[in-house]
Amino acid sequence: MTQLESARAGIITPEMHKVAEIEALDPELIRAQVAAGTIVIPANKNHLNLQPGGIGAGLRVKVNANIGTSQNDPGLEGARARLAAALEAKADAVMDLSTAGDLNTIRRAIIRECPVPLGTVPIYEAAVKAIEGKGNLADMTADDLFEVIERQAEQGVDFITVHCGVTLETARRVEEAKRLCGVVSRGGAFTICWMRANRQENPLYEQFDRLLEICRKHDVTLSLGDGLRPGSLADATDRPQVAETIILGELVDRSRAAGVQAMVEGPGHLPLHQVTANVVLQKSLCKGAPFYVLGPLVTDIAPGYDHITAAVGGALAAMAGADFLCYVTPAEHLGLPDAKQVREGVMAARIAAHAADIVRLGEKAMAWDREMAAARADLDWEKQFSLAIDPEAARAGFHPAGKGEALRSSSEGAKQGCSMCGEYCVFAILGKTAKV
Amino acid sequence: MTQLESARAGIITPEMHKVAEIEALDPELIRAQVAAGTIVIPANKNHLNLQPGGIGAGLRVKVNANIGTSQNDPGLEGARARLAAALEAKADAVMDLSTAGDLNTIRRAIIRECPVPLGTVPIYEAAVKAIEGKGNLADMTADDLFEVIERQAEQGVDFITVHCGVTLETARRVEEAKRLCGVVSRGGAFTICWMRANRQENPLYEQFDRLLEICRKHDVTLSLGDGLRPGSLADATDRPQVAETIILGELVDRSRAAGVQAMVEGPGHLPLHQVTANVVLQKSLCKGAPFYVLGPLVTDIAPGYDHITAAVGGALAAMAGADFLCYVTPAEHLGLPDAKQVREGVMAARIAAHAADIVRLGEKAMAWDREMAAARADLDWEKQFSLAIDPEAARAGFHPAGKGEALRSSSEGAKQGCSMCGEYCVFAILGKTAKV
Repeated sequence: MTQLESARAGIITPEMHKVAEIEALDPELIRAQVAAGTIVIPANKNHLNLQPGGIGAGLRVKVNANIGTSQNDPGLEGARARLAAALEAKADAVMDLSTAGDLNTIRRAIIRECPVPLGTVPIYEAAVKAIEGKGNLADMTADDLFEVIERQAEQGVDFITVHCGVTLETARRVEEAKRLCGVVSRGGAFTICWMRANRQENPLYEQFDRLLEICRKHDVTLSLGDGLRPGSLADATDRPQVAETIILGELVDRSRAAGVQAMVEGPGHLPLHQVTANVVLQKSLCKGAPFYVLGPLVTDIAPGYDHITAAVGGALAAMAGADFLCYVTPAEHLGLPDAKQVREGVMAARIAAHAADIVRLGEKAMAWDREMAAARADLDWEKQFSLAIDPEAARAGFHPAGKGEALRSSSEGAKQGCSMCGEYCVFAILGKTAKV
Repeated sequence: MTQLESARAGIITPEMHKVAEIEALDPELIRAQVAAGTIVIPANKNHLNLQPGGIGAGLRVKVNANIGTSQNDPGLEGARARLAAALEAKADAVMDLSTAGDLNTIRRAIIRECPVPLGTVPIYEAAVKAIEGKGNLADMTADDLFEVIERQAEQGVDFITVHCGVTLETARRVEEAKRLCGVVSRGGAFTICWMRANRQENPLYEQFDRLLEICRKHDVTLSLGDGLRPGSLADATDRPQVAETIILGELVDRSRAAGVQAMVEGPGHLPLHQVTANVVLQKSLCKGAPFYVLGPLVTDIAPGYDHITAAVGGALAAMAGADFLCYVTPAEHLGLPDAKQVREGVMAARIAAHAADIVRLGEKAMAWDREMAAARADLDWEKQFSLAIDPEAARAGFHPAGKGEALRSSSEGAKQGCSMCGEYCVFAILGKTAKV
């Protein structure tokens, strides 16, 4: 049975117990929400070293890091370095988006080294194989695609992005919309190419039951991809995007009915004032399915800083109800991220997630900030470093006040400020002058 | 006459014309809003090389960079390097917050090299002089403080932060509030020390008319400082903070009545869901006075990344109506920023400001994003670099797709993607397969 089927049967699985423990919630509550489909626990039965985690309503907002190879860096070592950076930075999930090198070897190696839920976009492998093997994407068959999905499921992939909402009908709407940036999802673009060339419906839509059967067998969670997500602010919240979301909502119903866990993906590029509306829309159309957003990026003009534009959109989206943030690195729109950029991307997304958790979870999340604030007021630098979201960066960035002079003494000894205010540190001034 | 007095007299000054030109608005609209106090144009008559800019409703959101010296780096050269970095990164205003070295020489040099509005916090100089000259902050007199303000006004400072709302009454409320981080404004902390030691009211509150007289003479804009701003999420939107804002609102009325331009400063550290409420509160209590926020930082746990936590809060605050964002650098809470960190801080704040401008100004702001999106879809990298908020960072971050292979040809020649997707660039896929 899948997590969803177990939950419906009233069974609290070991995975649900684990999620309840991590989130400090009642296991019965987790079970009830998995049964309702508002929480997913991506946990493929074949991912043996998985430490399960939950995604959805009432839980801590989670962060995904995309890793993998591309043409410029097709080797396993680069992918492993990015995986290690993502895990060290505490990503809650990882997606292997490799499109170059020996894809099966790379994926197996990543699954072995990945204790967090691992996702893929199977059409990448199917498309690359068709292009490399048959010389043309159009010659990929539906069977090729389903074989890839089945093999990846057997290998232990916990969740897969499938662009089932890219249909002949929604693709027509993209053409009519005359978007600035067309289709910016790679899976969406592959699908449209294939449909155009073959004049056939998207197999992942047309044979959705076949997809559900594979997912049910291995308990692979569906991440219903937004192949038509906007790739620029000008394209945001347009008819193709919303038409696709309606279809994804229908597929959520069918997934749930088949005992398959499902979440839904969302934008993308959105102006700030459309972020909340997009979350409300998805939650309503998709009946509370966990919402997985890429960004959203709130401006198009900041290549080199898109981890920041994504943190702005991500925090706002998560406050409004998005449950899962796909990180964006400073390399977005410019190249494949290196390990350092992977770390920066995860940190920015974790900041956004935590800022939203403070609103969603209250004191349970805010206790961390409270401890940091107390350590700050106490000029306890070691404690500040250990509490920092990135202890290494905090320690490296610290510059003690000049001359190493103690500003205030406490029971634990002399304490000093940093080089920003030097001897005029606010946490020292008041203590100092109290003696006047 | 000050800008405010001129506006009330129906005069459109050269500064108002300049602001109207920069913002592409009707000069009469600028005049009317300066007259109403909802726009300020900080332009000291003695700041000879100033290119005036406006701050307030209907205008582009502006960004301030704090620079200056501290104990660890008291030299003019460091301050000048930070000024140059701030200007190169296109900060709209700069504050000299120096507390070490020869303060008058440093300030005069900065004013000479600063074409954007320059602000200071005069109590810093007065406090440092009292501590260094008399051995004790408490021995600073009200006359000492007003003399510093008068001299800085004569030197050409365009706006000054004055913590007039830190009174015996609001300071009592701070003690009662038992805050985690007490008072984190340096000016606020100096003021409380002084009041405690002397058992006297804050001279900047008690002799507010004397302050107004100096400001009116040189047309110095008041930035009514939030000396009691929260320094941690746990202290946010508490009684001392709100009590101070009420007083600042009363002082806005008195400033306007005296023909002196005034804006109001705000938090600080705020949970995400309190950001909008704080802006609404300030705009209401202070009758639409331009709102100048420091951050707000939406979590306390990210030292080393506080430019990001501030971008999240700043974007949301500016969307809600804040007009002026004080940057926060990655060095915040850890040390004095270096020139590189100044640049990163300005860029992050500019991203937040622009994201909000898209909502506030519509197409006028979004045209930039539209151009970038078109260049992106066209794989026109040179155009993307030139349009980027930080062209240097965008160019440095770019990695072309492997093997330098052209992905698509256009009338302007062969074009290629970046190393993220290599040959599977979405802007190439669809073109490629159209040939199938």
